[in-house]
Amino acid sequence: MFSSKLLLVLATLLVGNVVEGLWPLPRSITNGSTGLVLSPTFEIEVNGPYPDDLQSAVARTLEYIKNDNHERLVVGRGSVDSAAIKSANTLPSLVVFSHDSKTIAVEARAPLGTRDEAYTLDVPSDGSPATLCANSTLGLFRGLTTFSQIWYTYGSNIYTVEAPISISDSPAFPYRGFMLDTARNYFPVDVIKRQLEAMSWVKQNVFHWHIVDSQSFPLVIPGYETISSNGAYSTDEIYTPSQIADVVSFANERGIDVIPEIDTPGHTSAISTAFPQHMACPDASPWALYANEPPSGQLRIASPETVNFTANLLVNAANLFSGSYFSTGGDEINTKCYSDDPETQSALNASGKTFAQALDDFIQAEHKALRNVGKTAVVWQELVLTFPVTLANDTIIMVWITSSDAASVVEKGFRIVHAPSDYFYLDCGAGAWLGNATAGNSWCDPFKTWQKAYSFDPYANVTESQRDLVLGGQQALWTEQSSPNNVDSIVWPRAAASAEVFWSGPGGNGQTALPRLHDHAYRMIGRGIKAIALQPQWCALRPGKCDLTA
Amino acid sequence: MFSSKLLLVLATLLVGNVVEGLWPLPRSITNGSTGLVLSPTFEIEVNGPYPDDLQSAVARTLEYIKNDNHERLVVGRGSVDSAAIKSANTLPSLVVFSHDSKTIAVEARAPLGTRDEAYTLDVPSDGSPATLCANSTLGLFRGLTTFSQIWYTYGSNIYTVEAPISISDSPAFPYRGFMLDTARNYFPVDVIKRQLEAMSWVKQNVFHWHIVDSQSFPLVIPGYETISSNGAYSTDEIYTPSQIADVVSFANERGIDVIPEIDTPGHTSAISTAFPQHMACPDASPWALYANEPPSGQLRIASPETVNFTANLLVNAANLFSGSYFSTGGDEINTKCYSDDPETQSALNASGKTFAQALDDFIQAEHKALRNVGKTAVVWQELVLTFPVTLANDTIIMVWITSSDAASVVEKGFRIVHAPSDYFYLDCGAGAWLGNATAGNSWCDPFKTWQKAYSFDPYANVTESQRDLVLGGQQALWTEQSSPNNVDSIVWPRAAASAEVFWSGPGGNGQTALPRLHDHAYRMIGRGIKAIALQPQWCALRPGKCDLTA
Repeated sequence: MFSSKLLLVLATLLVGNVVEGLWPLPRSITNGSTGLVLSPTFEIEVNGPYPDDLQSAVARTLEYIKNDNHERLVVGRGSVDSAAIKSANTLPSLVVFSHDSKTIAVEARAPLGTRDEAYTLDVPSDGSPATLCANSTLGLFRGLTTFSQIWYTYGSNIYTVEAPISISDSPAFPYRGFMLDTARNYFPVDVIKRQLEAMSWVKQNVFHWHIVDSQSFPLVIPGYETISSNGAYSTDEIYTPSQIADVVSFANERGIDVIPEIDTPGHTSAISTAFPQHMACPDASPWALYANEPPSGQLRIASPETVNFTANLLVNAANLFSGSYFSTGGDEINTKCYSDDPETQSALNASGKTFAQALDDFIQAEHKALRNVGKTAVVWQELVLTFPVTLANDTIIMVWITSSDAASVVEKGFRIVHAPSDYFYLDCGAGAWLGNATAGNSWCDPFKTWQKAYSFDPYANVTESQRDLVLGGQQALWTEQSSPNNVDSIVWPRAAASAEVFWSGPGGNGQTALPRLHDHAYRMIGRGIKAIALQPQWCALRPGKCDLTA
Repeated sequence: MFSSKLLLVLATLLVGNVVEGLWPLPRSITNGSTGLVLSPTFEIEVNGPYPDDLQSAVARTLEYIKNDNHERLVVGRGSVDSAAIKSANTLPSLVVFSHDSKTIAVEARAPLGTRDEAYTLDVPSDGSPATLCANSTLGLFRGLTTFSQIWYTYGSNIYTVEAPISISDSPAFPYRGFMLDTARNYFPVDVIKRQLEAMSWVKQNVFHWHIVDSQSFPLVIPGYETISSNGAYSTDEIYTPSQIADVVSFANERGIDVIPEIDTPGHTSAISTAFPQHMACPDASPWALYANEPPSGQLRIASPETVNFTANLLVNAANLFSGSYFSTGGDEINTKCYSDDPETQSALNASGKTFAQALDDFIQAEHKALRNVGKTAVVWQELVLTFPVTLANDTIIMVWITSSDAASVVEKGFRIVHAPSDYFYLDCGAGAWLGNATAGNSWCDPFKTWQKAYSFDPYANVTESQRDLVLGGQQALWTEQSSPNNVDSIVWPRAAASAEVFWSGPGGNGQTALPRLHDHAYRMIGRGIKAIALQPQWCALRPGKCDLTA
């Protein structure tokens, strides 16, 4: 099965003349080189069930097509297509065949592996209507996204020079994500929505929201409001339950599931601002002995009261989110924090448990509580490799320390999400951020270029029989040195790299993909995302001329 | 003289309790810890000559003070100052004593070394008016800039808790610059103005505008309009003479001189789009043999027609700018480009000149033409160290390849501007940008942190007797991977680091400077600059807590 998939993907990626605006590349595509112009009365007709959020998606698609105002990236720009435009037929409409009355939102949060994102799209060149078919509303949404990337603007014309186009598409991997840390620095709701919109354009389907951490706790959890009122950066820098519901709806309607993370038992110092009784080593000095970054502080895993507190906290937090996954974190647990904490030591003594047993019980209590409210647990790799605990078979493990650690995790039979710092950490390379780090580099130097991310092979560290355990992957932005002011440019278009790896499958070639990524980046900019420049515009207009061998 | 200067600076920088919002640090400052609140009717009165652009500067100062809405970066933010505010006296006005009828703009473009930027500022705590004195309008402008950084907002109060404040200030170095490349990618006028505004807040006084390069030629030069009409990225991505005049006025009125650069004889490929007859090796392949980046192309230095063409072009370009400096570039000259160019070889044969003689004559012709229209030449270091040519004694040399090259340049008696890639290049560390550079790093890795720039010692590579040759320095943004979308965040607040080095003088300590830089960055953000986060906000509120030893 996999080898035929691979062959299909490779065949697609090796074709030189693929529709230049498409990102990610469809799994199967044929296209011509004929001009086709959208009719001034172009419309999208939907036949069959037409749920609300599909209506909104159709309206957005029409807006994008009308307003993208995106000229082709060639020397001479749109003017080179004048002749093709003049002789082109006119496309009157896109006819959408809908078979499913469920909303995009409902389908976006179905269990991983059960989401149907497949669609077929045909854009004939003879002036007959284009057609979009899918078994699911979610699939129709993916097809609309593709359709919106076909068109260029020149003067009053909205056109393609690559008709006819025939696409049959579905993702190679069920999990294609992006992670944002909103705790080191705060990101307002509108900034998060802008990232979600951009994610949807590259068909990403999971927003991993690292919502709280040691430095701040912006999440307002019913019953635990004092944590955010004491531990958020300010009364404005919070996410209320209604804001959470708003973000989640916004994401779901765009085909994106939200996996929230409350990292435990480490990375929790902010909780001590309201519940100091549950915290070992809060803001200890020197912090470097007790945590990977300041301030230190870990939940007292051995204290029964803390175990209950944490489980209830997680349940109340989880109930704010519609999806069926919830991350309890589990990275970077510091043992000295516990060995120096008299409370923890006496709790361990009282119960006769070792640290490992206490941690195991703590995690199991968390996950059982979440299971009771319908949530499947997600954790960082340490809970398999560094401090192994008892985890349900369906637990999803995020591999982050290094890509090769995937091997050890799948060997234990767990499903994984590739989130390796050596390929996918968007924050690397900006120097050390500690106050006295005059000469320091970032811990995960160097900067991870889009090409590095794009070169990632999801199967590099797994055997053929383990491949089904690879759910997909995600790029991640930790925000020690980021804020709303640079989030667009540090994330985009780089995060589109993994979106293509996990939609189109492995085997892509960065050198030949670059023109398409330029095209997508310019289109994103037209839609309001402050994507970074990958090259001088001179290079963007001249594919291959800025390769080293050229 | 220098040692007393140094002692003064060091004494200032070592004081713990300096006014926390000031960047750069004044050369001499004393302050208290008393509250002082601006009167609701606070005004700035000017006694003496009151030129137009000083009026505008006063109006902007009042706007900043009113609208900064900047809370102190402490745990609890402004609320911790409630008691101090309650017991504070009220400041009714700032009285400005003006002695000079010249505009800021005129004084900003006086020859380097003759600009008087000194001022004294006294802000008493007893409710009597503050006073600002300077011999020059430019000095008053610097004082207004300082005054605007003293104030914080809490509720309806605009206040300081550090009165009384007494400042006597003047720059350590006459040249404090920032360089922007507007050729690799284009930057609209409003984006450039935003950088100029931010530069003025840190008392930078030179905008080195690397306005054109091989990839695009946005500058519209009277008599040579075909270069920009053919060689700019589009008809919108240009700088017309009226836009140039607008940018230069905007800069001058903010105390900033503009040094334009038309880089020659290399980095000129775009000129070949209109004048191919003057170009050797245009867009040759493989480009790496002929240029440091694509496309290749160098002016035919040996051809008399090209020498004349270039001199006239430079004169017409120089006449668009009000300042008295003009850079003719001179970096990265490729000899193979000329040895492979039949035209150049026959011109050399006809004249009997060597390459070195032809280059010398070419540069001399350029500089003579510029001298005739009142411009002093600025060049990159290669014209002293790599391909030495005859340069007037007053030529300013920019040291860029590595900071230690300063030694060899001052040894030849030239004045230098420190612009070393190993400290001051803002583009480093973002990976290679070539199309097929999957694993490549940026050529000047690693990322230059603000701390690295701040650690720069202007006198490290010069002897005591050569110190007068050090005019100052600048950070620089080359824009292969930058655009209007990330310019604010890649430049700010990092470029403020060199602004303080060259205003306050060497000897600063990055660890103790960090809280002030945070303060300035947050203030910049309030004024509309998308400055990057240097640390988690948790750290910004807790000086020293995110140092490694804490």
